Amino acid sequence: MITRMSSLFLRTLREDPADAEVPSHRLLVRAGYVRRVAPGGFSWLPLGLRVLRNIENVVREEMDAMGAQEIQFPALLPREPYERTGRWTEYGDGIFRLKDRKGADYLLGPTHEELFALTVKGEYSSYKDYPVTLYQIQTKYRDEARPRAGILRGREFVMKDSYSFDLDDEGLARSYQAHRDAYIRIFDRLGIEYVIVAATSGAMGGSASEEFLAVAETGEDTYVRSTESGYAANVEAVVTPAPPARPVDGLPAAQVHHTPGTPTIATLVEYLNNQAGLGRTFTAADTLKNVIVKTRQPGAKDWEIIGIGLPGDREVDQKRLEVALEPAEVALLEEADFTANPFLVKGYIGPKALQDNGIRYLVDPRVVTGTAWVTGADKADHHVVDLVAGRDFTPDGTIEAAEVREGDTSPDGKGTLVAARGIEIGHIFQLGRKYTNAFEVDALGADSKPIRITMGSYGVGVSRLVGVLAEQYHDELGLVWPRAVAPADVHVVIAGKDEAVISGAEKLAAELDEAGVRVLLDDRKATPGVKFADAELIGVPSILVVGRGLAKGVVEVKDRASGDRQDVPVDEVVTHLVKLIRR
Amino acid sequence: MITRMSSLFLRTLREDPADAEVPSHRLLVRAGYVRRVAPGGFSWLPLGLRVLRNIENVVREEMDAMGAQEIQFPALLPREPYERTGRWTEYGDGIFRLKDRKGADYLLGPTHEELFALTVKGEYSSYKDYPVTLYQIQTKYRDEARPRAGILRGREFVMKDSYSFDLDDEGLARSYQAHRDAYIRIFDRLGIEYVIVAATSGAMGGSASEEFLAVAETGEDTYVRSTESGYAANVEAVVTPAPPARPVDGLPAAQVHHTPGTPTIATLVEYLNNQAGLGRTFTAADTLKNVIVKTRQPGAKDWEIIGIGLPGDREVDQKRLEVALEPAEVALLEEADFTANPFLVKGYIGPKALQDNGIRYLVDPRVVTGTAWVTGADKADHHVVDLVAGRDFTPDGTIEAAEVREGDTSPDGKGTLVAARGIEIGHIFQLGRKYTNAFEVDALGADSKPIRITMGSYGVGVSRLVGVLAEQYHDELGLVWPRAVAPADVHVVIAGKDEAVISGAEKLAAELDEAGVRVLLDDRKATPGVKFADAELIGVPSILVVGRGLAKGVVEVKDRASGDRQDVPVDEVVTHLVKLIRR
Repeated sequence: MITRMSSLFLRTLREDPADAEVPSHRLLVRAGYVRRVAPGGFSWLPLGLRVLRNIENVVREEMDAMGAQEIQFPALLPREPYERTGRWTEYGDGIFRLKDRKGADYLLGPTHEELFALTVKGEYSSYKDYPVTLYQIQTKYRDEARPRAGILRGREFVMKDSYSFDLDDEGLARSYQAHRDAYIRIFDRLGIEYVIVAATSGAMGGSASEEFLAVAETGEDTYVRSTESGYAANVEAVVTPAPPARPVDGLPAAQVHHTPGTPTIATLVEYLNNQAGLGRTFTAADTLKNVIVKTRQPGAKDWEIIGIGLPGDREVDQKRLEVALEPAEVALLEEADFTANPFLVKGYIGPKALQDNGIRYLVDPRVVTGTAWVTGADKADHHVVDLVAGRDFTPDGTIEAAEVREGDTSPDGKGTLVAARGIEIGHIFQLGRKYTNAFEVDALGADSKPIRITMGSYGVGVSRLVGVLAEQYHDELGLVWPRAVAPADVHVVIAGKDEAVISGAEKLAAELDEAGVRVLLDDRKATPGVKFADAELIGVPSILVVGRGLAKGVVEVKDRASGDRQDVPVDEVVTHLVKLIRR
Repeated sequence: MITRMSSLFLRTLREDPADAEVPSHRLLVRAGYVRRVAPGGFSWLPLGLRVLRNIENVVREEMDAMGAQEIQFPALLPREPYERTGRWTEYGDGIFRLKDRKGADYLLGPTHEELFALTVKGEYSSYKDYPVTLYQIQTKYRDEARPRAGILRGREFVMKDSYSFDLDDEGLARSYQAHRDAYIRIFDRLGIEYVIVAATSGAMGGSASEEFLAVAETGEDTYVRSTESGYAANVEAVVTPAPPARPVDGLPAAQVHHTPGTPTIATLVEYLNNQAGLGRTFTAADTLKNVIVKTRQPGAKDWEIIGIGLPGDREVDQKRLEVALEPAEVALLEEADFTANPFLVKGYIGPKALQDNGIRYLVDPRVVTGTAWVTGADKADHHVVDLVAGRDFTPDGTIEAAEVREGDTSPDGKGTLVAARGIEIGHIFQLGRKYTNAFEVDALGADSKPIRITMGSYGVGVSRLVGVLAEQYHDELGLVWPRAVAPADVHVVIAGKDEAVISGAEKLAAELDEAGVRVLLDDRKATPGVKFADAELIGVPSILVVGRGLAKGVVEVKDRASGDRQDVPVDEVVTHLVKLIRR
């Protein structure tokens, strides 16, 4: 295939688009791969569409190879199945809802668990039918609050979503593993640098779950990894290693102290060390900070106030807190809440008043039996010292709400955590029976008894991968596509106006085409300088420059990634390039 | 590729689905190609998706071959561009509208004229850039009042839409012709029986327009064709051949007659012939029926009342009337309208009162100067006889509102019209400058003056074609796919439980696969009867039966379309089948 730039629907831009925050967005727009059409909505111009299709094909090949079967659902879906699983409500503002002319409710599908479960229920009935894995490569919609970074986080995007249906947990584990392996092959083939992190499952429900994160400084997802082991996890999924419980015997008794003007941890520590006359030194880590929030279950009317106790040297991580309490929503208290609950003494809240007043009190896993704390005494300007967990108070449970910090011990005990940023490109879930319970998806067993099917759900952000690859493969001159996804194999630059140069380049392009090479031929009436700059910007892996050297029988082959240039005899260059491409 | 029915996500149905009105719907559901998910929304199961993709590929190849360039737009589009062209309003209930979390208005794109015009404006600036033709194969949405006939008229469907951009009318005519030729190649390759009919352009605006209609008794579109010439047209596009004007000299003067109890054409004709004592015989065709409607321009507040005069032997064709008045909406008068306009005497309305009261009066093209009519005298129980057009009244124009009937003279003067039914599969429009005017899409000319670009718009109903093919290619046993779109080349039936039969069939399937043949292998544990019935239902063009004959060295090749069976030596059958497929 020869694509002529003289007629290609492509205009490269010299200037960065004003709204581009990240290199991939900047370059994909400048090189004419995508254009913004609406907030979070992009059109794919010819070169962009080719990269997208190349990625789709790799994904499709690997899904087919693992035995998954491709089907396709509408994006416009009726409310009812999503109502049944609660997701119509749970998604909140995150999905697009609409009504048809008769007033019936629809949504634009964010993922299709409901529909796949219903479809399998509709077709299959016997245990002999299982297992089955189905997938689609389909346009998805999410009403993102802040669509950003170009196609990295759009509101309309292409996703490969697949769903496995198994008779038992072992089957689900195998399907999960098969997806994990397929995803590794997909991302390896695409040349993406990524990590697999333990993840939480968000609104999807279910248990085991991992994310594939492309390593990128510009990524929205923070994750942590161990300095010494292979451990990596989403910050939301980090499980705090709890120290062992200690004996409470012999610990000093709790004592309330007058600590005037100490509503913050900093002022409290300062007072304790310099004015309290306790003869001991305290750090923020010795204090127990109590944060009060309210939560509401989906569909519920009333809020529940809960108290969260964590070491005073740590802040609450809002996202970890939200994930810990999912699917409930979380909000801070309003002034009216304090008025209605006068036992909440701002700056001096302690476990006692909470538990005396029936407030659920959840603590950081570090607050184990036998640890002694300085905490609020539920009275203005007073704190209690040596309040011992398991002796003076018993929490109602633990919660992963505290921030995770670099230097924290890795949950596997090996090394400490360091932070890194990534972009979610894949997600695999062992969903379990949330959806099959909702729709009563059963297989008739060999013993004629029904077997409730168990599901997995797996996603790859196909259109996002175009952005991720651009993020990982670019330099200051432009895009640098890996061969597996490049919009062409060779970019032929006609660097001259001589008839001999033009016809020589045309001849080489035709020969390359003949050899099955995808050629982008710059046959425009433009200066060599403009053409070279566009070739760098567009990022086809090999650039073949046909210019003055042709008279001496040589052309130049430039490797876009390394920048290496090599003069090659004109009668050898097709073989040379075919070898490079097949390598 | 070998697809094993033992694991294929496919369950054929013995019973017709209750909601299926047409054979294609019935068979596509029974054979497991599609499933209904919502009103007008279908999922594509594995075999259906393959047929859809095969059709897509034929369309893509022909669009690429004509030099069109593929791009892709979102389906979720902002209101603003559609507001600018008036289509946000004009579409009425016909499109899906929604709001995002910020309350901004969006629609699900029914077609993308606005976006393509804006994109070309954004990229191109010089006359040297033109012409250009862009296309997409994309999911479209229309909120059909009555989604019906399965995938033939869905609310979410796949369409190829393309748009040409030219500097002048000659260029547009060339682009239009290139599309016409490409569509002929597409539909010929797919094996569809179709006609090309003159069409109206509906809400799209513009002038020259033709439709490609697949011939189908179950089609929703009625068209007419000449018994003698190649003329074919949508009923809405039929231009009534007007008789020549006649001299008015010497015609009898108009006379008002008392015609009691004759508010209908039938009673009037009866009275005229039997009680009026005029000594002449009248037919309904001699009367001039005046139908009063009201219309409102898009976005306008007020309705305009108009009168339509047509020969009394013809009814108003509601659809032709609507098309004639587009983009205005049309409604019947309400009682209040008659009250407000007392000169409208029901059953006795004539041209005089209308024109005296400033009502626009449009007539059927047959009402030419010199024709004499019996029509209402604007007074109860009175009609006027010998009212001559061009002498006693002068219409404000003509309108194509009368029904078209079989036996009418063909507009090209050759033969008469007969009616037929079809399904719209393609539509080509010379849009002109409606959209480029709205968005000021100009090219800078060689003389540095701006040239307003002219557009064409062209569509193929890609997913609908699956239904159309099923409609044209089936028999009482099931589907009968043409080779170009079939989900497999050969359906191998293992007709027996013997190890030799099974391994013989497996070996043949592997050899066929090796030869590049797409094999559907029925390796299920089912009776030969069930397998044969499913093979007929699924409709793969060649059925290879491996059974008892194998012991004697023969297998059976059955042609699905003709039903012909042939015993073929087992060591020749792969070559035999490959030849059939390549033919």
